[in-house]
Amino acid sequence: MAGKANLVVGQSGGPTAVINNSLVGVIHQAMQESSIAGIYGMRHGIAGVLNEDFVDLRQESAGTLELLRDTPASALGTVRRKLKTDDYDKLVDVFVKYDIRYFLYIGGNDSMDTVYQVSQMAKRRGFELHVIGIPKTIDNDLAQTDHCPGFGSAARFVASAVRNSGFDTRSMGPDGPVKLLEIMGRNAGWLAASAVLAKECESDAPHLIYLPERRISQEQIVQDVRHALDTYGFCVAAVSEGIVDEDGEPYAAPSGRVDAFGHEVKLGVIESVAEIIDSSLSIRPRFDKPSYLQRSFAELQSSVDREEAYRAGREGVLAAVADASGQMISFERLPGADYTIAYRLQDLDKIANAEKIVPAEYINAAGNGVTEAFVAYARPLIGGPLMPFGRLAMHPVARL
Amino acid sequence: MAGKANLVVGQSGGPTAVINNSLVGVIHQAMQESSIAGIYGMRHGIAGVLNEDFVDLRQESAGTLELLRDTPASALGTVRRKLKTDDYDKLVDVFVKYDIRYFLYIGGNDSMDTVYQVSQMAKRRGFELHVIGIPKTIDNDLAQTDHCPGFGSAARFVASAVRNSGFDTRSMGPDGPVKLLEIMGRNAGWLAASAVLAKECESDAPHLIYLPERRISQEQIVQDVRHALDTYGFCVAAVSEGIVDEDGEPYAAPSGRVDAFGHEVKLGVIESVAEIIDSSLSIRPRFDKPSYLQRSFAELQSSVDREEAYRAGREGVLAAVADASGQMISFERLPGADYTIAYRLQDLDKIANAEKIVPAEYINAAGNGVTEAFVAYARPLIGGPLMPFGRLAMHPVARL
Repeated sequence: MAGKANLVVGQSGGPTAVINNSLVGVIHQAMQESSIAGIYGMRHGIAGVLNEDFVDLRQESAGTLELLRDTPASALGTVRRKLKTDDYDKLVDVFVKYDIRYFLYIGGNDSMDTVYQVSQMAKRRGFELHVIGIPKTIDNDLAQTDHCPGFGSAARFVASAVRNSGFDTRSMGPDGPVKLLEIMGRNAGWLAASAVLAKECESDAPHLIYLPERRISQEQIVQDVRHALDTYGFCVAAVSEGIVDEDGEPYAAPSGRVDAFGHEVKLGVIESVAEIIDSSLSIRPRFDKPSYLQRSFAELQSSVDREEAYRAGREGVLAAVADASGQMISFERLPGADYTIAYRLQDLDKIANAEKIVPAEYINAAGNGVTEAFVAYARPLIGGPLMPFGRLAMHPVARL
Repeated sequence: MAGKANLVVGQSGGPTAVINNSLVGVIHQAMQESSIAGIYGMRHGIAGVLNEDFVDLRQESAGTLELLRDTPASALGTVRRKLKTDDYDKLVDVFVKYDIRYFLYIGGNDSMDTVYQVSQMAKRRGFELHVIGIPKTIDNDLAQTDHCPGFGSAARFVASAVRNSGFDTRSMGPDGPVKLLEIMGRNAGWLAASAVLAKECESDAPHLIYLPERRISQEQIVQDVRHALDTYGFCVAAVSEGIVDEDGEPYAAPSGRVDAFGHEVKLGVIESVAEIIDSSLSIRPRFDKPSYLQRSFAELQSSVDREEAYRAGREGVLAAVADASGQMISFERLPGADYTIAYRLQDLDKIANAEKIVPAEYINAAGNGVTEAFVAYARPLIGGPLMPFGRLAMHPVARL
């Protein structure tokens, strides 16, 4: 046991719509633990430790903490920073100086590597530090866990965006029949795949989903779009920002030309795909790039994601005071008809440099959509169905 | 009086998140009018009349109509089509053939011109047709009305998007301090202006709002961004897609180069502005282009907008059966502390080819933001405050 000592918590990497739930979970649980003295927050993650820039979270009001659960982005500020060995030494120096023996870090792959290195350094230095990682990433690509907090809310936003924009496209008829939505996820297509949850019937958007996990040729894209247009009269595609062609070359590519400012012009992935469709089918696709809205849209929080993120924070503190260290809270989905999660601990060394991509059984044979198995996996995570929409029955008036 | 005859209703131009409320308002009111026999919907607007492609709206269930009020985009399908004189003749032929004497059309500027021409043609032909326009446009640029249905919901979405993405940017610190959001509105900056409703305090996003109504030089953009960074540590700008430089040249401009497919590469407005900032300040801005989500995001319907759109549909039918024609339902804001609207009729010839841009008193002196007068104008339209967010008080821990 570390005995009565201070706890520090930080947020790292890209924010999410529910990451503050994990922060509040940590604070709420820490307040119940007699072995925890100060509850400190690091400003801008690990940078806040190096700069000794801590805030006293015990002084925050209960009302503020409740509101934070609705508030997107990282309330403590976040950071993207690759540390050097010297930095890890400095971190442990600061922990010693401030009597910090509990270190909770909410983050994704890179952050889990940081957490792992901190735990190793503390061990080498013989300093008793309880280091626990709390998972967070809309990319859903952490190993050793069923899914990651942040993903369910981003998936709910993406499904909602595709559905809303899909209804828009359908109503345009021949005046704008092709819509592309660019979805985050450079190496892992989990979020693009979740666009499928927009679909209530066969003709609904999205008609095509392209993931980085499957190479896709220009010819197939053109063929797929033509087929959707022939079948449904319109075509909505969810396109991961990371898709690559049959040679593994990214569609989002430098064009080799410079603009008026002397900068190289890069064609975004969605612009590249739009050009391909336009030049082959003479249809100018419309597109949406919701970008950072995907990870920050508070109004589309998943209720499941929100609760799990909160609980992960509490579990992190429980593990730390129970003498665990060098581990991450992970989610195990229990067998059974109902969706139930058990919270586990996994060793950080198995997580730090791994990346979980969408497995083959979740991608359809044509490589342009996902399977029912993926739908079964993803549906519980978005926290209940999207709001119901209506559709006219369209009884024709007899022609005279 | 036209006597007992059929009514036809259609939707035209870009859809909105509440346009189906106007459709349902028309149907509900028409069902109460003894002078109305059939209630027909035209599929894809005026194209549905020319093709005699009508649906029988009396056969839709009450439940479907209720759900439609939550459903974005044009349930009947929409159209963008400039008619010729022959077409107007053909339209009146179809009205005669189907005994249609009530013509309700939900649309924006171009659609109101169509409605006006139809009313003129019917008059020339001596056919008693009651033609009423129901306003609809997220651009909010129709003349002779305080505002337009569709705008309030789009403004609510934009305010929410800027706030969510702004919290995200603030939390990134120096790792991504500049964010640009591209907002719809080619000639009128009403929607970009409404980003101001994201702001709860001085340091909140948006720090800059650029509208098409004010020329803005590259130098000013750079100066403005630098000032915001110096003052707040981050900078979020809402940029209308239609902004022009000091010579009136659009920022969204053809680059004069062709890509691999032989197509001219166009720099989007937001990409152009990003390049300017990057080349001057060596900061690569991040950006969001929510595009069609702005007009279709059902979850961000404004309750006020929704009710007004519905009511405008009802008022349209009331006017038509009261023998009005060649007019549009307009909104008059009544004087007084509380927001109250009176529904009026305005002649279409004053609306058909006019465009209402943001007036000077709503734009700040520097041309990079809006005034309190604009806030007072826009706030009631978005239907109550955005959901409350929390902020940490950030009591510092004493340095040791």
